[in-house]
Amino acid sequence: MATIQKLKLVPLGGLGEVGKNMLAVEYGRNVLIIDAGVMFPEQDMLGVDLVIPDWSQYLKDKKEWVRGIVVTHGHEDHIGALPYLLAEINAPVYATRLTIGLIDVKLQKHGLASRANLHVVAPGERLALGGLFEVEFFHVCHSIPDAVGLAIRTPVGLIIHSGDFKFDHTPTWGLPPDFGTLARFGSEGVLVLLADSTNADNPGFTPSEKTVDEGLDKVFREAKGRVILATFGSLISRVQQIINAAARHNRVVAVDGRSLEESVGRAQDLGYLNVPPGVLVDLPRLKGRPDHQIAIIATGSQGEPSAALGRMANGKHRHITIKPGDTVVMSSRTIPGNDYMVGRAINKLFKRGARVINGKADNVHVSGHASQEELKLLLSLVKPKYFMPVHGEPRHLHAHAELARGQGVPEQNIFIVENGMVVEFDENGARVADRVPGGWVFVDGSGVGDIGPAVLRDREMLSQDGFVLAVARLDQKTGRLIGRPQIVTRGFVFVKDNLELIERAEDEVIAALRMNGYQDPQITIRKALSELLYSETQRQPMVIPVIVES
Amino acid sequence: MATIQKLKLVPLGGLGEVGKNMLAVEYGRNVLIIDAGVMFPEQDMLGVDLVIPDWSQYLKDKKEWVRGIVVTHGHEDHIGALPYLLAEINAPVYATRLTIGLIDVKLQKHGLASRANLHVVAPGERLALGGLFEVEFFHVCHSIPDAVGLAIRTPVGLIIHSGDFKFDHTPTWGLPPDFGTLARFGSEGVLVLLADSTNADNPGFTPSEKTVDEGLDKVFREAKGRVILATFGSLISRVQQIINAAARHNRVVAVDGRSLEESVGRAQDLGYLNVPPGVLVDLPRLKGRPDHQIAIIATGSQGEPSAALGRMANGKHRHITIKPGDTVVMSSRTIPGNDYMVGRAINKLFKRGARVINGKADNVHVSGHASQEELKLLLSLVKPKYFMPVHGEPRHLHAHAELARGQGVPEQNIFIVENGMVVEFDENGARVADRVPGGWVFVDGSGVGDIGPAVLRDREMLSQDGFVLAVARLDQKTGRLIGRPQIVTRGFVFVKDNLELIERAEDEVIAALRMNGYQDPQITIRKALSELLYSETQRQPMVIPVIVES
Repeated sequence: MATIQKLKLVPLGGLGEVGKNMLAVEYGRNVLIIDAGVMFPEQDMLGVDLVIPDWSQYLKDKKEWVRGIVVTHGHEDHIGALPYLLAEINAPVYATRLTIGLIDVKLQKHGLASRANLHVVAPGERLALGGLFEVEFFHVCHSIPDAVGLAIRTPVGLIIHSGDFKFDHTPTWGLPPDFGTLARFGSEGVLVLLADSTNADNPGFTPSEKTVDEGLDKVFREAKGRVILATFGSLISRVQQIINAAARHNRVVAVDGRSLEESVGRAQDLGYLNVPPGVLVDLPRLKGRPDHQIAIIATGSQGEPSAALGRMANGKHRHITIKPGDTVVMSSRTIPGNDYMVGRAINKLFKRGARVINGKADNVHVSGHASQEELKLLLSLVKPKYFMPVHGEPRHLHAHAELARGQGVPEQNIFIVENGMVVEFDENGARVADRVPGGWVFVDGSGVGDIGPAVLRDREMLSQDGFVLAVARLDQKTGRLIGRPQIVTRGFVFVKDNLELIERAEDEVIAALRMNGYQDPQITIRKALSELLYSETQRQPMVIPVIVES
Repeated sequence: MATIQKLKLVPLGGLGEVGKNMLAVEYGRNVLIIDAGVMFPEQDMLGVDLVIPDWSQYLKDKKEWVRGIVVTHGHEDHIGALPYLLAEINAPVYATRLTIGLIDVKLQKHGLASRANLHVVAPGERLALGGLFEVEFFHVCHSIPDAVGLAIRTPVGLIIHSGDFKFDHTPTWGLPPDFGTLARFGSEGVLVLLADSTNADNPGFTPSEKTVDEGLDKVFREAKGRVILATFGSLISRVQQIINAAARHNRVVAVDGRSLEESVGRAQDLGYLNVPPGVLVDLPRLKGRPDHQIAIIATGSQGEPSAALGRMANGKHRHITIKPGDTVVMSSRTIPGNDYMVGRAINKLFKRGARVINGKADNVHVSGHASQEELKLLLSLVKPKYFMPVHGEPRHLHAHAELARGQGVPEQNIFIVENGMVVEFDENGARVADRVPGGWVFVDGSGVGDIGPAVLRDREMLSQDGFVLAVARLDQKTGRLIGRPQIVTRGFVFVKDNLELIERAEDEVIAALRMNGYQDPQITIRKALSELLYSETQRQPMVIPVIVES
């Protein structure tokens, strides 16, 4: 059968969006999955807790084909959906030691750790999967130790997947980039390169993690009181830098926030954090210690009110009250869409007297992703025949494609695709084949996939103008109204100040029902009320008639 | 009476926030109001259309004291609340010619133009107001022509208000900054300086508007197809630059979007826009013209879906369909909180094949506000005894205060205050006196001030998990339930897929009422349903019992 001879790349997430990276590589009846991450909900995904890739259509009849799940590194946007995926398919997971450790932490929380099939691999190792794929893991630099890229040998050719990376000549942890191996792939001949587009619209080079050491050193040198640093739980390299800087300046470090405690604990257990004796202490043990000997690493870098820094900003933290003399350092990037929340937290911290140091200008954060010159260098080393930008919004994918074109990759060999679009390779070339229906699966509370666009549209409408509900008791024989209708409303107007409007709404329901001879009471009430309320307030609350027959 | 001898500065808006700038200057029974702007609603002000200052408490018994309203320039955050203010007090308004023109446009829309008392003043002019104030208008550079700062002579001393400004040696329109006049104030002796803090956390100098000419020139030189530029209606200087660049490159310009059409029209009528003959054309008249001869200035720089650019991005524009070859230029800043919407619009434009050029990196936008070195220069020229940073979030006000301290203004002479805090000056010094209750007034639809925090909390709750309403018909004699309760829900779960849960909710209501002997049915239903729904879904919809007695 001809179809078995094709190599298919099927992005299931991470294309045209930030996060929930996931890609399937398919050949014959063999599927290899790369990463399974989550995405933070976008602003209009009201009430949604998490977003995971929608793999249901693609995997529907292919669950038995999955030979393995290969994970490039331990960040949420690459591992966060694994508990949901492993609940559906029981494939082995391959990753480096720290990555497996962080996956294990996650699976434990979901009660899945015992039955998962986790395998530690090392950079340089080659893994045969399903007889037709060979995966070679190669070391890359990123903002977490033990990150890898993937070289996947298939019957159609060699796939290079960059993973998340930057070319950091002086990384915080581990070796500099493995240019030799990348050049070797280039000589071997690369069919297709999939590369990280996160910073593809950023000119120049991303600064080394090392530059953050200088920024942090300045902060610790100048700070007279406590230093509180907000970062992501999974930015293990940053945690190491903070511990180093604190130790140099004779401060102890407390870790505040569950996700940080978990990942720092696991990284330390596995030997990926070097902590001088006595430097890490429990938060309650800071009591009584002079301020200039204290550093705190806290969750809440995105302004989340419920995270450690958010509780400090709101004056709701059990142990820490922000006061003049405190220095707060935002040592992470602000995810697009979170700038309002972050700004609000910063403003509240200022109001409480803290000095707040934020981001790039003060060298307290650098990106973990390659900028344009690095991306060009990767393209030059790997010399792929085909190119497929991954990990990024459309603007990043397009910017990355422009770089590839500039380096001579022919236009028709570049595939800017969306999630679910299948790119197919064979001896005749490459093309976008079919499209697998998919997109987002929303996790809300304990529900996975039980809300969708219809519920979100309702939430959006409710969030704008609230609702007005009219309960009408109708005689089941005559259909006539019994008594006055009851108006129940929330989020529309402040009822106590608008009793007259509510009364007019009741009158309107009575009049409309009577005028219409009690025909189609639902439609009659909805129409009459919507019109009245709009003309009175220029607002469009959700209008819901409820008929009680008696 | 001693109180009559005090000079009071009462910020009614613009402190600790972005927008709705407004300040009252009070001495004896004389009040002078400076600006009356609007603010765009923040992310958690759900469904709110506009935010205006809450002057109700301050002006309650002082309406007769208002000698005049002085407006520094014609941007929305300085003039947008005037229609609401003038609906309450009928004081004369003083501003420069373009500013008065733009105010008039605004008042016409509210049907207030005929009864407003508008006076044109020129920079350099001195105005006696109420016998005790003398206001001298001085020219400043900003991103709109005819912007001024204010020197207000009072019996207690000279107040300098910078207005929105930057020190632009090569402005697009009009003269460079009037350093001579600022130095003259410095020699005269300045009691207090109020200065624009918008960019106080930005090191160095803000680039001249001139640099945008180069950026635009490059865009027009390289663009092969149409050039579509998104900017604010009130950025008149930018509109001039775009017209100049388009004319140099033999393109005609169409203006798309009502707010742009209005302000461009008025500015042109008043002679504040120099348009070469034939360059401005109506949008429908672009038809048939080659793409490389077309430029379009469009509203929608903040990603608003209903503005011109938003409709193009969504494929819903009546006249313009984005296609490969189009170049879209975002020539304005992104207001904090809007980055998600802007990013989404940009991504959609990319998907339709446009090239999108965004912001500072490409020199297609510069800020109209002074950076740190300019703010220092202002402080050096004016040499104020007291300093009060205005226009900015807490982080900007604090950064500005730090600059003033660095230049020798004593800590106790710097007032970082919030809206409503009264700063009082007399022969004994200055101090924060009382606080006038105030804050925000929300405009939603046609309602001004009829929704507040309670309604917003309901909207927030509804936006997260929707609502579940249980209609229970109770026998008015026995209190017993008649029939099954009706569950009505929106925004909680997708009902069709969750009929079982809805049925369980009904059963739960029946069981709980019975168990409780039909006592307190409202409380019983709310508690039982909330618990069931949380344990089943980990969500917390708004639960509303409705009792129908029959």
